[in-house]
Amino acid sequence: MSVLPKALETLIVELGQLPGVGPRSAERYAYHLLKSDQNKLSRLADSISDVKSGVAFCSKTFCLVESGTDVSPLYSDPARDKTVVAVVEDPFDVLALEKTANFHGTYHVLGGALSPLDGVTPDQLHIKELVQRVKDDKVKEVILATNSSVEGDTTALFVQKELAPLDVKVTRLARGLPAGVDLEYADQITLSRALEGRQSL
Amino acid sequence: MSVLPKALETLIVELGQLPGVGPRSAERYAYHLLKSDQNKLSRLADSISDVKSGVAFCSKTFCLVESGTDVSPLYSDPARDKTVVAVVEDPFDVLALEKTANFHGTYHVLGGALSPLDGVTPDQLHIKELVQRVKDDKVKEVILATNSSVEGDTTALFVQKELAPLDVKVTRLARGLPAGVDLEYADQITLSRALEGRQSL
Repeated sequence: MSVLPKALETLIVELGQLPGVGPRSAERYAYHLLKSDQNKLSRLADSISDVKSGVAFCSKTFCLVESGTDVSPLYSDPARDKTVVAVVEDPFDVLALEKTANFHGTYHVLGGALSPLDGVTPDQLHIKELVQRVKDDKVKEVILATNSSVEGDTTALFVQKELAPLDVKVTRLARGLPAGVDLEYADQITLSRALEGRQSL
Repeated sequence: MSVLPKALETLIVELGQLPGVGPRSAERYAYHLLKSDQNKLSRLADSISDVKSGVAFCSKTFCLVESGTDVSPLYSDPARDKTVVAVVEDPFDVLALEKTANFHGTYHVLGGALSPLDGVTPDQLHIKELVQRVKDDKVKEVILATNSSVEGDTTALFVQKELAPLDVKVTRLARGLPAGVDLEYADQITLSRALEGRQSL
């Protein structure tokens, strides 16, 4: 005999499909929603139904844009330097870099990282479009800002090789100690990379 | 200038109101939803909109029931012993106790725990209804199964006092070492309670 009403069980199953949400968290969210008022539920439900129709991808950079917009303001803005391109895996990486307020170039979202095991091959990523952009916009520097993971590293290497025949400087984000971390608590890989990438003062 | 499309920002704000979901988790959920297909989004949206209308509260035990059902099968089932009542704070606590498959009495959901600071007073909990049930059903034992927290303890004490004039045995869930925990890692309060509640073999 099921102890929970069917509507609640359905909701728990649906919420459990969000990334990183286990059965307990799903129960917690579902119970919270059950106690919320119907207006709030409708707002959440509408925002879920409407998200896909309200969002489009920039045809140049593959950043997220308002639907109906062709090119992201992060590209069309004349203040952005089109000859410097930061290459990232996912659209939210753009957000992270924008928050630094330290980058005034443009972005190129690959749409993922190479991972043959998960079936992600080079032609599923926006690499051809990047090569085309480098030619069209006479890009001077491509900054590889993929994640610091095996997939991110593989992707960076692949993109670097694709760009090699072109006359463009290719750089990578520095790897080393993150801010606020004690040396003794840094892991070996991080510390090795910090040593390798040491800079003269 | 906002970097994210409005529809996505709205969704992140709405998701961020779930309990324990911070801005980063909300972004992660929103991006996952954005990449899901529309059918899946509609199913989630519908299950959120419909949860309140599909769920009701049992008029006897205040457990969650299918809407249109008056009394929970956990109460109406003749196999359940109506003279033993486990008093819990929230409807999901019923689920946890049912999973043990070790309890064959009935439940009474208080609907929260006493917490004057949060404005939860005794008349907001289903305590009167419990007293009435104890009289009506000639209940022999009330098992206080509130949480092991300050609020849970306060609530248990209050319910115990309310039941004192009646001819009913009042018990509490045992407190002590949880299964699989090393003695050396148990906290002081747990260990003190395990000592206090020690049982002769």
